[in-house]
Amino acid sequence: MAFDFSTAVKKNLPAPSAAPWSGFPTYNFVGGHNDPGSLPVDKLTRACSDVLSREGKTLATYSLESGPQGYLPLREFLVGKLKKYSGIDCTTDQILLNSGSLQAIDLINEALLAPKDTVIIEKSNYGGVISRLNRLNVNTVAIDVDQHGMRTDQLATTLDQLADRGIKPAYIYSIPTVHNPTGSIMSLERREHLIRLAVEYSIPVFEDECYADLIWDGKRPPALYALNNSQVVHVGSFSKTIAPALRVGYTVADWSLIGQLLSLKTDAGSGALEQMLLAEYCREHFDEHLASLNVNLKTKLDTLCDAIDREFGTSAEYTLPPGGIFLWVKLPETVDTARLATVAEKQSVAINPGCEWSLEENANQYLRLCFANPDVDTIEAGVAKLAEICHREFGVPVYAGNTPQ
Amino acid sequence: MAFDFSTAVKKNLPAPSAAPWSGFPTYNFVGGHNDPGSLPVDKLTRACSDVLSREGKTLATYSLESGPQGYLPLREFLVGKLKKYSGIDCTTDQILLNSGSLQAIDLINEALLAPKDTVIIEKSNYGGVISRLNRLNVNTVAIDVDQHGMRTDQLATTLDQLADRGIKPAYIYSIPTVHNPTGSIMSLERREHLIRLAVEYSIPVFEDECYADLIWDGKRPPALYALNNSQVVHVGSFSKTIAPALRVGYTVADWSLIGQLLSLKTDAGSGALEQMLLAEYCREHFDEHLASLNVNLKTKLDTLCDAIDREFGTSAEYTLPPGGIFLWVKLPETVDTARLATVAEKQSVAINPGCEWSLEENANQYLRLCFANPDVDTIEAGVAKLAEICHREFGVPVYAGNTPQ
Repeated sequence: MAFDFSTAVKKNLPAPSAAPWSGFPTYNFVGGHNDPGSLPVDKLTRACSDVLSREGKTLATYSLESGPQGYLPLREFLVGKLKKYSGIDCTTDQILLNSGSLQAIDLINEALLAPKDTVIIEKSNYGGVISRLNRLNVNTVAIDVDQHGMRTDQLATTLDQLADRGIKPAYIYSIPTVHNPTGSIMSLERREHLIRLAVEYSIPVFEDECYADLIWDGKRPPALYALNNSQVVHVGSFSKTIAPALRVGYTVADWSLIGQLLSLKTDAGSGALEQMLLAEYCREHFDEHLASLNVNLKTKLDTLCDAIDREFGTSAEYTLPPGGIFLWVKLPETVDTARLATVAEKQSVAINPGCEWSLEENANQYLRLCFANPDVDTIEAGVAKLAEICHREFGVPVYAGNTPQ
Repeated sequence: MAFDFSTAVKKNLPAPSAAPWSGFPTYNFVGGHNDPGSLPVDKLTRACSDVLSREGKTLATYSLESGPQGYLPLREFLVGKLKKYSGIDCTTDQILLNSGSLQAIDLINEALLAPKDTVIIEKSNYGGVISRLNRLNVNTVAIDVDQHGMRTDQLATTLDQLADRGIKPAYIYSIPTVHNPTGSIMSLERREHLIRLAVEYSIPVFEDECYADLIWDGKRPPALYALNNSQVVHVGSFSKTIAPALRVGYTVADWSLIGQLLSLKTDAGSGALEQMLLAEYCREHFDEHLASLNVNLKTKLDTLCDAIDREFGTSAEYTLPPGGIFLWVKLPETVDTARLATVAEKQSVAINPGCEWSLEENANQYLRLCFANPDVDTIEAGVAKLAEICHREFGVPVYAGNTPQ
């Protein structure tokens, strides 16, 4: 009789995958996928050839000749890029390259969190962080976000109340620049307020800036790390600016944290070739690529908004984001986006239901639509199809765009 | 006053790294680094260009077009390679590509282990597994290894005794083919015995075969997975055969485990470019590359053994391994290899002390010397230097090769 591993695995693990992957949905509005048309294949291919022929032999050693913090030329590029785009002053010793920013998040959590700890987060939030904090069994205290970012007045009150109860949060986690999922950019005033509060209560700040380079007009305040380089740990990624399948993210922090993260990073190094390729390509082309990528993304966002306006009319509310790859949409309270997502999935329309991206009480009225990956025609057809499904399930919109009135 | 993260990190973490990496030691006999001269840079560069120009656009999506189990053409290559080299019959659905085999080990441990569980391992063992099991706070029961692999007679007795005490081990972990660090290859008879015992007691078998392709004469029994494809989880890697800085390993198991590992693999995919490159290169060149790599590694091993015989004389004992990249050397009981390693490190000679690679009582008499990375001259000079240091510290060898007699 064949052995069945399901009898051997531990209790309380996430549910196993039911079946092997069977392809992307036709209308794919989920995931941080990028715009295939913007991918600079020719230049990436040339950069890869250049760096491989020049330095290929170093692949024979773990971590190349750069040590466990990652390929030195990529850290050197980041020193300049972080200065230019985020106002950050740092050295290569303060940068740890990771296998995507998700590894950075996992390592930081491993260093700073234990079960029952309390952390402060923004109330609508990255689903991957919400699910991680749940699995780690920590208590989350959620602060509202508006179009100027985390409500630091609420943060002040909350920290005061927690202190009264003898609770010191393990960190304050924030996505200040192109917040996920709302798209807001935290104002400089609030950034300064947040840092003052963190210093006052001596709480580490965990800044996640994965989408920060995707801002149409390029206008943004300095990163939180730029305002305090000892107490903030800053995380970023090349997934959104170059290509998500290249798993390269980074952590910027004082050595008092980087040294600890290194001892927890027992993976024998992150993929070296992807780091080499990015360093070689970005050194010459990052700025120009980003500019053209942002133009393409903006076009797709406009297409998405037009389609929503057309198909959902006044049933859908959203704040036009200044950048990013997602739109956070609110539907009337008669709609349950969790059920909408389940029904839509069966018709090959994939959306993120609000309950996975928000701790708001009315999270089930929200959905997150990612627009970087589908082409313009697919965005339009997908939104029409979603409106049709939503109309059929919830009577919202009252008339779907393709329903005869 | 600057914040110090060391006040914020959790207790009981591994000690932080003291300082940024400062380069490899001159005589580097540690780590799974490979032979730089064997690295097929030109062909890798061409393969990378080919696959990038052809499929580069797919980098815009997480996991390319292959889903979370990893790049399909690499899984297809592995189906053939595992059949040819390890006697394994499997399909692409039974393969999960990982960010190095270390990630495979971590995911399998996450699925199968809880604190206080008991696991069975070989007494001399891969240091990375010993340290992981310690951190996971599991009980290890260690079985002797001789030149025919794990002593399955001892395993039988041990399983019987554990059963009497009501203890069911979470798994039996083995490196049957080019055992780390002893280099032994488990005989077919013992493999069959091990599988019979595992079935009798209904215990999963965790087979780690990272070095299995590095066998000089290519002769090896079928993998444990080939003898039982429902109860064995098989792990392998391209680090030792192609390049360690490319972080690509793999897990082969029944879907009842693969599905669970997938839900635990929350990294948004392993690095795609490295998988693409390996598939493109290996499809055409794996066999020829392996043959020439093994010739080069054998030459280095011969050089190492000659140097040890010359410099240490009868003080050093070892069994000539049939493959791999390391030699497991025993010194007289007056020597403490932990201290030897510390002293040698200061003189830029790096070795693995036995205490990190073995649970044997006399582990401190052993050391592991990795020979793939240093060139032939460096091997000779490094062994001479090590003998000189060992002579000075412990009076062993009585006359170091470069000490006037």
